[in-house]
Order: sequence, then structure tokens, then C-alpha cells
Amino acid sequence: MGGGRGGPVAIVAGSGRLPDLLSARLQAHGVEHRILALRGFAGSSVRRRAQASVDLLDVKRTLGTLDTWAPSAVALVGGVQRPNPAAVLGALAAFRNRHELADLLARGDDHLLRGVIGLFEERGHAVAGLQDLAPELLARAGVLGRVSPRDGASRSIAIGFDVLDRLSPFDIGQAVVVAGRRVLGVEGPEGTDRMLARVRPSRLAGLFAGPARTGPILVKTAKKGQDLRVDLPAIGPRTLERAARAGLEGVAIGASCTLVIDEPETVAAADRLGLFLVALDRASLAQESQ
Amino acid sequence: MGGGRGGPVAIVAGSGRLPDLLSARLQAHGVEHRILALRGFAGSSVRRRAQASVDLLDVKRTLGTLDTWAPSAVALVGGVQRPNPAAVLGALAAFRNRHELADLLARGDDHLLRGVIGLFEERGHAVAGLQDLAPELLARAGVLGRVSPRDGASRSIAIGFDVLDRLSPFDIGQAVVVAGRRVLGVEGPEGTDRMLARVRPSRLAGLFAGPARTGPILVKTAKKGQDLRVDLPAIGPRTLERAARAGLEGVAIGASCTLVIDEPETVAAADRLGLFLVALDRASLAQESQ
Repeated sequence: MGGGRGGPVAIVAGSGRLPDLLSARLQAHGVEHRILALRGFAGSSVRRRAQASVDLLDVKRTLGTLDTWAPSAVALVGGVQRPNPAAVLGALAAFRNRHELADLLARGDDHLLRGVIGLFEERGHAVAGLQDLAPELLARAGVLGRVSPRDGASRSIAIGFDVLDRLSPFDIGQAVVVAGRRVLGVEGPEGTDRMLARVRPSRLAGLFAGPARTGPILVKTAKKGQDLRVDLPAIGPRTLERAARAGLEGVAIGASCTLVIDEPETVAAADRLGLFLVALDRASLAQESQ
Repeated sequence: MGGGRGGPVAIVAGSGRLPDLLSARLQAHGVEHRILALRGFAGSSVRRRAQASVDLLDVKRTLGTLDTWAPSAVALVGGVQRPNPAAVLGALAAFRNRHELADLLARGDDHLLRGVIGLFEERGHAVAGLQDLAPELLARAGVLGRVSPRDGASRSIAIGFDVLDRLSPFDIGQAVVVAGRRVLGVEGPEGTDRMLARVRPSRLAGLFAGPARTGPILVKTAKKGQDLRVDLPAIGPRTLERAARAGLEGVAIGASCTLVIDEPETVAAADRLGLFLVALDRASLAQESQ
């Protein structure tokens, strides 16, 4: 390719199956792409197919490679499992002044990644997300498994979305657990799995069991106005397992803004555990909340 | 007294020093009062001075005693250390129909207590809070200890109050931890102490240490429009100790709506641990937040 911006899509690939999934989707769409594997993170199948590899913190080499490829878009996908933020800052130090670094740092993880994206964009790269390149990988609205939420669940779900909406301006988690009209937990930097581990169903659960009385529900979605390229909410089979262990009744996610990692397996886990898994459009929920 | 509503103030006394503190304040104000001790909760000094004792769940006897006293106001003070909610519901069952009980239950702890208060009010009793009877027991605005918050802290504190304001419509905790502009934790039903135990200072802490860079801060205050008779936010010496252990820099509370349990001891703990302790008026913070 080279030269113009009509080059391939560049996948900057971290860990997990997502880089492979995106690559397969692009191939299915007939979109030319190249993979820049992050050493120590990208899995073996991704690394084998990658055109180049870089160290996560070798910002200079990453920018150099992208300049050579002149991609039509750059996608950062897959995990980098919480790199030491100090090391990330160190790597950015050559490109950002002390004041900017301190600002990124005070604002939290989101903003560190935003700093990296900003760096790419300053070099003229278009940074794209899954929602741009392969929106079919994001949850589509509807009940995803065999179990449907009971009538009483809709109120709890609406409250969960409402809480997350109100917290959108802040750098904080993307998930809450709601039982009835009570918020049992708000995810912080510890992540969804650890929040689920500390949420205990109320001792009241089951006391008034009946069709209208539903158990706790995990609600996870993107912040309002969130840059999905920076932080795409995700759930997977493990989320369902943790949810079941915490005594939850089901999981509700935001449609078109949440990634279901390995959807067939995740749905199978929900079915096996008897949990509902539903994706909802934010707009359709606006009325439901109290 | 008997007859009219010009009787004594009735203190329905749970555990801790608060019943004694309130009694002492009422005495200082020359306000006649009687104590109805909750068996198993009220401490020995309170029990000795009580005119009557009841079991927490003996609603009928409690109402009967109050009817006899015809108090000018009833105050529920002191802890009842999370009585089994099922037992509370059982005790209320004679006074509330199944639908009302299910509703109280779905709404959470706040509403259980509100149910008890409602019961008292239906019988014609005026239920008062500390803020009515002895407002001097609530935190007054200002820096309470020797350590003053650094300039950079005001932004984090304003964000904390802002988050709590936004969560006010929901039945959820009254405290958050904020570092820089990042929310590290939102208190759920686990309470402030356990939230502090799980909040870990960011690995970034200290990386850009300097006058403008402050550590995490605990912010605790009442919900907007909260009924302080139902749930008065409180801190004490132990809160300061847990805060210090979690690596916090200080504690900010809402003035006039937060109880500082044993204020001299709490302030001494803050001073000894090098933490600031400041009480702020919500109104003065409205501008500060982002």
C-alpha cells in the first residue's frame, strides 16, 4: 500500500480472541488488514499471522510501523491486562509534557488509553473501534439465551442503566448489581468479576419469592457518550459463572455498545446456569426508570 | 405527663454512645425526656437511666409505651446493628399488609426504618432526628483537625459530593473514595469500613507527587433530600483509622448532616494519623465540580 490513507486496516493486537475475531470479520467483509502484534500479549495464532510485532511500550516503533503502513484505520483490540501505568507513562513521556502526563494520570485509566489514541491521531491516523469495523461483534438487542427475564426484572434493569447513566461523567466502572430497587454494588477499578465476588444477595432474598420478586441482576453498559475505542464494556462465559455464584438471576447489557466475548459459549453458559442474558437499547429504557 | 403532646421527648435507644449524648444535650437544654431502651442493644449506662425497656421487635409494646408517655417527639437513636430484616418484617407484619411489606423489602434498608417511623407517625407521634433536637451534635462546617486539605484536594472532594448527589435517588451507600478525578470506590450495602478495606491506592500514587497531587479522599454525606431521621451518615475514630490504612489523605463530610461520633476522639485520630478532616456545606461545593 504505502503513500495515501487508502491502506489496510491496522489491528494493534493485544491478548484474547478479539484480534482474531476482528481479523476474520474483516476478511469476510473483504477488507484488507494487517496485524501489529503486541509482544507478550497477542496470542500465538495472532502472532503467527502478524506482519509485525512491537513491545507495548515501544511507542516510537509502533508509530514508525503505522507510518509505513499508512493504514486507512487503526484499531486497538484485545487486552493488555493492566500494564503498569507508570511504565505506560514512562513510554509516553517522550511525547507528552509533564503537565499533560499528570493530567492523564489524575483522570484515570481511560485517559491513559485516550492519551495513546491521541498520539496516533496526531500522526494523522484514524483510530477506529469494533463498532466501526465489525459492529456485528457487539451485542444485538434482544434476549440472547433461552431464559427470559421475568416481568419484575425490567424495573431493576432500568434502575441499573439509570445509575450508570448518572455516573457517566466520572471515571468509574461500567457495571452495577441491582436487586429490586436496591443497588447492591457499583463497580470500581476492581472490575466486574471482583464486584460480583463481593456482592452478596440480601438476606431478604426469597422471603417474598413470587413472580414479581426477582433476584439481583448485573447491569453492564458503556457510559453515555463513552469513546468505545477506549473502553468497550465486555462480558464472557466467566462473567456468567461469577454471576451465578453470586446468586444473580440474570445479566443485562447495553445493545450495540457491549462486547459479548465468545457469544455462543457465553449464551451456552447462561442457559446452563439458568440465567437470563438480555441486551437492551438505552433509548427503550428511558421511560422505565423511576 | 400523659394526655396531650406536650410530654417529654422519648429517646428510643439503641447501642453506642449516641443515646447518652443526646440525653446529655437535652438535659443541658432543659428539655425533659425519657428513655425507652432497646434490650440487647442499649448500653448499660443507658439501660440504668431508662424509664422502660422493650425488645426491638416488640412493636406492640413499644407503641403502647409511647402512647402512655404521649411524648412531644420521638427520637430513634443509636445502632441496632443490622437486625435480621426478616425478623423486622415479621414484627411489622401485624401492622402492614403483604403488599406494603414486599414494597419496603424491595426498596432496601432505608425503607424498613421508614416503615417503623411511618408506624409511629400514624399513631400521632412526631418523630424527630438529632438535627432537630441537638443539631450541635452534627458536624459544623470547617476544618476539624490540625491538618488542612491541600489545594488539590478540593476538586476531588467536589467530585465526591457530585457523585453522591447523582446517586441520591437510589438506595445505595453514602460514601465514595476519590483520587484526583477518579472514583476508586462507591459504598454499597457493605458499609464505609468494608469499602475502605477494598480500595487500594492506585499504583500511580506518588508518581507525580507534589503540592497539586493529592492522595485518595473519603467523601461521606447524606443523600440529597435524605430523611436524616432514617439514616444519618456517621464517622468515628475507626473510620479515620481505616482511612489511614487504605492510604487515604483525608476525609470530607457534609456539614450539618453528618454525625461525628465522639468528635474529640475522632479529631485526635485524624491529627495523630496525619489525615485532614473537613466538613463542607453542600451549597459551597456546587460550583467546584467539573
